[in-house]
Amino acid sequence: MVSRPTFEDICTAHRRIQGAVHRTPVMTCATLDKMSGRRLFFKCEQFQRVGAFKFRGASNVVLGLSAEDASRGVCTHSSGNHAQALARAARSRGIPSWIVMPTNAPAVKRAAVEGYGATIVECEPTLEARETTAANVIDRTGALFVHPYDDDRIIAGQGTAAKELIEDVSELDAVMAPVGGGGLMSGTCITTRAMLPEALLLGAEPSGADDAAQSLSAGTLIPQTAPNTICDGLLTSLSERTFSILRDHLKTIVTVTDDEVRAARTLLLERAKLWVEPSSATVLAAMLKDTCPIPMGAHVGLILSGGNV
Amino acid sequence: MVSRPTFEDICTAHRRIQGAVHRTPVMTCATLDKMSGRRLFFKCEQFQRVGAFKFRGASNVVLGLSAEDASRGVCTHSSGNHAQALARAARSRGIPSWIVMPTNAPAVKRAAVEGYGATIVECEPTLEARETTAANVIDRTGALFVHPYDDDRIIAGQGTAAKELIEDVSELDAVMAPVGGGGLMSGTCITTRAMLPEALLLGAEPSGADDAAQSLSAGTLIPQTAPNTICDGLLTSLSERTFSILRDHLKTIVTVTDDEVRAARTLLLERAKLWVEPSSATVLAAMLKDTCPIPMGAHVGLILSGGNV
Repeated sequence: MVSRPTFEDICTAHRRIQGAVHRTPVMTCATLDKMSGRRLFFKCEQFQRVGAFKFRGASNVVLGLSAEDASRGVCTHSSGNHAQALARAARSRGIPSWIVMPTNAPAVKRAAVEGYGATIVECEPTLEARETTAANVIDRTGALFVHPYDDDRIIAGQGTAAKELIEDVSELDAVMAPVGGGGLMSGTCITTRAMLPEALLLGAEPSGADDAAQSLSAGTLIPQTAPNTICDGLLTSLSERTFSILRDHLKTIVTVTDDEVRAARTLLLERAKLWVEPSSATVLAAMLKDTCPIPMGAHVGLILSGGNV
Repeated sequence: MVSRPTFEDICTAHRRIQGAVHRTPVMTCATLDKMSGRRLFFKCEQFQRVGAFKFRGASNVVLGLSAEDASRGVCTHSSGNHAQALARAARSRGIPSWIVMPTNAPAVKRAAVEGYGATIVECEPTLEARETTAANVIDRTGALFVHPYDDDRIIAGQGTAAKELIEDVSELDAVMAPVGGGGLMSGTCITTRAMLPEALLLGAEPSGADDAAQSLSAGTLIPQTAPNTICDGLLTSLSERTFSILRDHLKTIVTVTDDEVRAARTLLLERAKLWVEPSSATVLAAMLKDTCPIPMGAHVGLILSGGNV
């Protein structure tokens, strides 16, 4: 059986990363409350450093390394928010980082990672090439590999977003987060169960990448094969680790279409002035569906995961 | 000599409107700090109710009315944020409001005001028609006219934004706000002088509507005749009241071009994930100019006025 972090690990992570990460604001919007029939509390991780919650987990890993381990540097393969987060966390500690990116990664993402002082190592745009290239970097440099979500330390770091949300809002009846690889949702589950044992826990997932909903429904891990959604932060599959956590805690995943995500994203901007990436808008899209099982009038905490478009 | 509000009036306004208005967050961004060479603290009034600081002043007027006066309702002529703010403040108190709007006002602005329960009264798109129509409404209904900035109660309400900013950030060396009719800037001046007597006070103004800079420079009120800027919240002229306050407190107004405003607005979105209206971006544009007189390394409070585009 794979390991999993405890709420104590999340509290330790929170003490470790305080000062390094922003305590992001919790925002409300009367119009969206009215439209959803509930009171919504948005935990705004788009205002986190590097523009996404990923900086929490990456900071927890990097700041938790022994001096000896840290001196070896860190490595990952990603062209998304995790790459920026790891590069920036490494720079803050003054250690090297190597980011394996496919040759077709957008120039803006390369520039962001380079701007944080990372060394980019190019590879062909296949998962196999990414993994082989990362293995080569690690062999050559001795750097430590940091997976974007299949890692107890990463999950513990991501769980600090829900911890702050629950600390800042006195009474929540339900908590919802987007589900991609399951790192954020896993941390959210562990935190919420410890702090609010009676609260409903829900995930939001694009219907074009609904491996988590399918896996929970089937009771077994079903990998994502051909994701098709604008939510580019939610394309990845659960791991055995995140699946086992979600299976224990999460009864419901609400799936939403790309059109519903677009509409929710526009509402967040027009009505709440909140600019988010599509992945983040899944949670509001889920709240606005007739099928959303959260009772009317409930107080709901929603994690907006990031703002990098 | 015209009257002006005191800092005590601003404190009274703050007690009165607490609970009705959001205490908006103060946000920071390491990249923008680096670019400007100072530490920037953004007071985010785009997250205020109705999406702009204007709700502070309107709430102070409406909540400060006696029961008898309130029952008569309120009236203004505006197609901008003040109209929405007054309509919503009136609805919150359960009193009627009449908003005089030109026939060519955008449908979205009409819809917003109507959504807050106001009665829209149409007029020809000239200042004379607006004033005549408003006078007729007042004659007919007995409603109280509420000017968008030439009113001590409005200025006192707007001054609460700077009060919260200074309360939330322990040490500020300078405070800057956009200048349109001068209501926000006047309130910001009175608050800052009382709470931080040594702090620099600056205004930001579009060069296409620089009547305040010209007036301060000439030492006499020079009305804005043909404004030409994308900053549609800053087209109006100072009044005698706001001019007299600014003349006493404000040494420097930094003027910025529309191109500088556009660039600053893009930076706020890309680097800080903050979506603001062009008028708000004037303050960052001013910070990024070589001619900005705020010393390098200073801690600067900047008021982002709104997010309605």
